[in-house]
Amino acid sequence: MDDCLLLDAGSGGRASQRLVERCFLRHFDNPLLRRLDDAALLEDMAAPLAVSTDSYTVTPLFFPGGSIGTLAVHGTVNDVSMLGARPRYLSCAFILEEGLPLDILERVARDMAAAAREAGVRIVTGDTKVVPRGACDKLFVNTTGLGVVYANPSPSGRNARVGDAVLVSGTLGDHGLTVLASRENLSFLSDVASDSAPLNKMMEDVIMVAGEVHVLRDPTRGGLATTLNEIAQQSDVSILLDETAIPVSESVKNGCSFLGLDPLYLANEGKCVCILPEERARAALAAMRASPYGARAARIGSVTRGRGGSVVLRTRIGGQRLLGMLEGAQLPRIC
Amino acid sequence: MDDCLLLDAGSGGRASQRLVERCFLRHFDNPLLRRLDDAALLEDMAAPLAVSTDSYTVTPLFFPGGSIGTLAVHGTVNDVSMLGARPRYLSCAFILEEGLPLDILERVARDMAAAAREAGVRIVTGDTKVVPRGACDKLFVNTTGLGVVYANPSPSGRNARVGDAVLVSGTLGDHGLTVLASRENLSFLSDVASDSAPLNKMMEDVIMVAGEVHVLRDPTRGGLATTLNEIAQQSDVSILLDETAIPVSESVKNGCSFLGLDPLYLANEGKCVCILPEERARAALAAMRASPYGARAARIGSVTRGRGGSVVLRTRIGGQRLLGMLEGAQLPRIC
Repeated sequence: MDDCLLLDAGSGGRASQRLVERCFLRHFDNPLLRRLDDAALLEDMAAPLAVSTDSYTVTPLFFPGGSIGTLAVHGTVNDVSMLGARPRYLSCAFILEEGLPLDILERVARDMAAAAREAGVRIVTGDTKVVPRGACDKLFVNTTGLGVVYANPSPSGRNARVGDAVLVSGTLGDHGLTVLASRENLSFLSDVASDSAPLNKMMEDVIMVAGEVHVLRDPTRGGLATTLNEIAQQSDVSILLDETAIPVSESVKNGCSFLGLDPLYLANEGKCVCILPEERARAALAAMRASPYGARAARIGSVTRGRGGSVVLRTRIGGQRLLGMLEGAQLPRIC
Repeated sequence: MDDCLLLDAGSGGRASQRLVERCFLRHFDNPLLRRLDDAALLEDMAAPLAVSTDSYTVTPLFFPGGSIGTLAVHGTVNDVSMLGARPRYLSCAFILEEGLPLDILERVARDMAAAAREAGVRIVTGDTKVVPRGACDKLFVNTTGLGVVYANPSPSGRNARVGDAVLVSGTLGDHGLTVLASRENLSFLSDVASDSAPLNKMMEDVIMVAGEVHVLRDPTRGGLATTLNEIAQQSDVSILLDETAIPVSESVKNGCSFLGLDPLYLANEGKCVCILPEERARAALAAMRASPYGARAARIGSVTRGRGGSVVLRTRIGGQRLLGMLEGAQLPRIC
């Protein structure tokens, strides 16, 4: 009986205390969290700040290359980083289904703790709700991240300018295809793995060497194509991509072609799009490639003049294809 | 078909954009949110900061006196306030079930917007996930709140001192009993209503007039008894309460007595416990009573010497009863 989560662990009473001690304080331990007040007190944050929130509902909870725990840290750390901010603190709120095996919760907490250590962030406040069996599917987690903005001006989806270079920090589609393969037990895809990774250090290096970065975005849900469409709309420009330059691993290419999926619309969890002045592109690319998470960084296109913000792919055989925003849901519960 | 949430609204693509425009930007609109970058940029926050997170899973979604939307703002605003901080910004992350009627989501968003306006906070960043039918029960929402700490030192559960007075800002048990009554359609409880309310302004007034406040806590899950036990443990003191002084409305008293519930263990969503030096108690009480949410504020006991942190109730007939922490789950999904 001690091995599964009971409803009373969400009551706010003694069982909640035991769960917090066993699963969260043990793995996330730090002096700010240990105060266990209603809120955490952060003494050392100076404006401007970046704040970002995401809930994670991915299924399955564990997959090659990561888990809901790594995503919950990397996803939020990356969103904060995309504003040119140094992520420092995370909050963490679980919604758990009655009956969840406690060792699953512990594995998730361990993954979160390890990911937070690598990214250099601390989990300082949290919340746990337990809902009756059937009211949620196993485990959802929300993290909200806080960082100190160091880039000036801060990158924004609104800042792409005609003539800018468009870079991507590595291969596309790995996360989306991996989750699909794990969920459906597609054994012929056994060599794909999620790219779940923290990008904050890479972003600092890129901004430092490039000096001026107009846009940073991580192409998660909806993939590269959707992210670039958002940027094109927000900045009122067009984006021209060179298909042959877009990095996609052989496994993802083969898997997508077999399943009829387009890697440009699949989610990534450890990649960024960087848009910056042409003359800074070479230095930024070198900084990306020096990171363990940027070995296959590439320049994939340019920002061009264009009404209404379209994204155009110059294909391998010289044609042009309009890349729209994702319509419909390619895969639910991908992150 | 336009009236229910489809799975693709969580895809990150065009349907997500439409949902954000229709439900969130419309109701929460402000210049920081409208940037729609991966994170919000806050220019005007100075340390020390308070940060707090809560997920809300209450069922039913609407009940007399409030809704999941009012709770999602009040609960987090109050947690930030309990650190002696002025709440300024909220993040907001929804997990929605496919098929949810969109007018329900809009009602929730409207309630959140109205509650945020009253509390003087802005919703500056968000996230929406849509999960397939059956993977969650209708709608969950997480908010994370950020505030600037003005109290020095900041109140903490660790700061209760022997001799301090214990105050509560009003009647107890209203929220818990109301949710139970709504869920179970208990028509004889038709005159109870949730106390869901923002306490930030009351807390500012109390701290300003009292000067020195040792502990502030909102007795939510687990009720007053559990909250006081936590404080007694954290501060390593005992707390002696006078039963006759504890404010409970007639309706809650009758409902609890009928159902065999103890109002001291029922959740509150618009009340605070305030522990402070005896000589400041009168001024703090007056400040509470001057607030629209503190009319029935009362002094209910004192902090006493005591090993292991026990909470003792001096009963109406002169006996003493040990008030333990909540054991078991009195009511799941209460907030």
